[in-house]
Amino acid sequence: MIDQLRDSGLGTRERLIEAAGRLFFEQGYHATGLFQIRKAARVNGGSQHHFFPSKEALLIAVLDDYRENLDRHVLEPAFEQESDPIRRVFAILDGFRKRLRSSNFRLGCPIGSLALEVSNEYPDVQRKILEVFEMLCEAIEELIGEVSDRLPAKTKPATLARHVLATMEGGIILARAYRSLEPFDQAINHLKEYFDRLLKDRVVSECRQRAEARAKEMSR
Amino acid sequence: MIDQLRDSGLGTRERLIEAAGRLFFEQGYHATGLFQIRKAARVNGGSQHHFFPSKEALLIAVLDDYRENLDRHVLEPAFEQESDPIRRVFAILDGFRKRLRSSNFRLGCPIGSLALEVSNEYPDVQRKILEVFEMLCEAIEELIGEVSDRLPAKTKPATLARHVLATMEGGIILARAYRSLEPFDQAINHLKEYFDRLLKDRVVSECRQRAEARAKEMSR
Repeated sequence: MIDQLRDSGLGTRERLIEAAGRLFFEQGYHATGLFQIRKAARVNGGSQHHFFPSKEALLIAVLDDYRENLDRHVLEPAFEQESDPIRRVFAILDGFRKRLRSSNFRLGCPIGSLALEVSNEYPDVQRKILEVFEMLCEAIEELIGEVSDRLPAKTKPATLARHVLATMEGGIILARAYRSLEPFDQAINHLKEYFDRLLKDRVVSECRQRAEARAKEMSR
Repeated sequence: MIDQLRDSGLGTRERLIEAAGRLFFEQGYHATGLFQIRKAARVNGGSQHHFFPSKEALLIAVLDDYRENLDRHVLEPAFEQESDPIRRVFAILDGFRKRLRSSNFRLGCPIGSLALEVSNEYPDVQRKILEVFEMLCEAIEELIGEVSDRLPAKTKPATLARHVLATMEGGIILARAYRSLEPFDQAINHLKEYFDRLLKDRVVSECRQRAEARAKEMSR
């Protein structure tokens, strides 16, 4: 991995962001030292201080980088896989599931972990974390909005998007604690069942309305 | 708080567990040093090493203590408040909501935070975290099981309990990131809506069965 970074042709700044991101996401922020980041990025102390005077500055750059790449890493793969909006929502969740599995439960949602670990201490970091969550929420809200005519009138895409995100983040916590995809899958399956019921509800009530209209017409 | 501990009449071991728990839960495991714990517990280095040779040993004692007190701190208050099993489930979740609010979002679910921060590193800690989650899951599963005759036949109380726990843990992540109860409430309200739909489903299908049976009887 170190060789990958050295040979990647990335500049010093980019190497620091990449190494720091990988270490923060896997080990956590406090468990990672600047020395370890410099070593992984093959960067000396002077260069690191030049670009990032503190670990917090590096974390903010990591979060900016994650947000800028959210489209490419999280949304686009899901969009390429599916065309139906609701299937796209679940494809996004499946992307996080793949990451859990491929990392042997060491990586889940980097932002969720950092939200719990560091948001109490650094207001600037908390704001960046919020930005990523909002970006993800808005993408999900937009997808749900595309089928809002199939959902019960009182179901708000914005609140449903938050519910999707919460279920996924919690599913990741359980998967990492259990070192198993089972609790994640159980939570997501219930979420699917909820969507099915919301979508069916509209169909059923429209059928009922049509049947009532027909009955009225026939009784004239 | 320090005075509270000194005057609480607790022994050295208990003071260490109490101070460590408070600091681990609020700041995280890695951000908390043994020196800070000793200072908060008013215990010297020799005594600390006598009871807990490492920070990890202290964390395991904190998790055991949390598990032993789960009934008293988390379940019993919810059980006293409500008698209906499903209302009891949501009263448990409301207990976590109260903790978010009273701590100004500094505390959510201590176990969820630790699951993300340290379960990669310490297998013993991961096992303890799992035990707490399982205890909470089983309590919720039992409550759901009490109304299983009101739920669709294919709904499994065990998987629904995991879904409840996932939604709550994720709702806590969002509440802490947004420093607002809004995303937590939105997630939990959708969970309530899901329960309502599951419970209604059985009622509707039983009504239908009764109506069909009556129609059959009348057509004889």
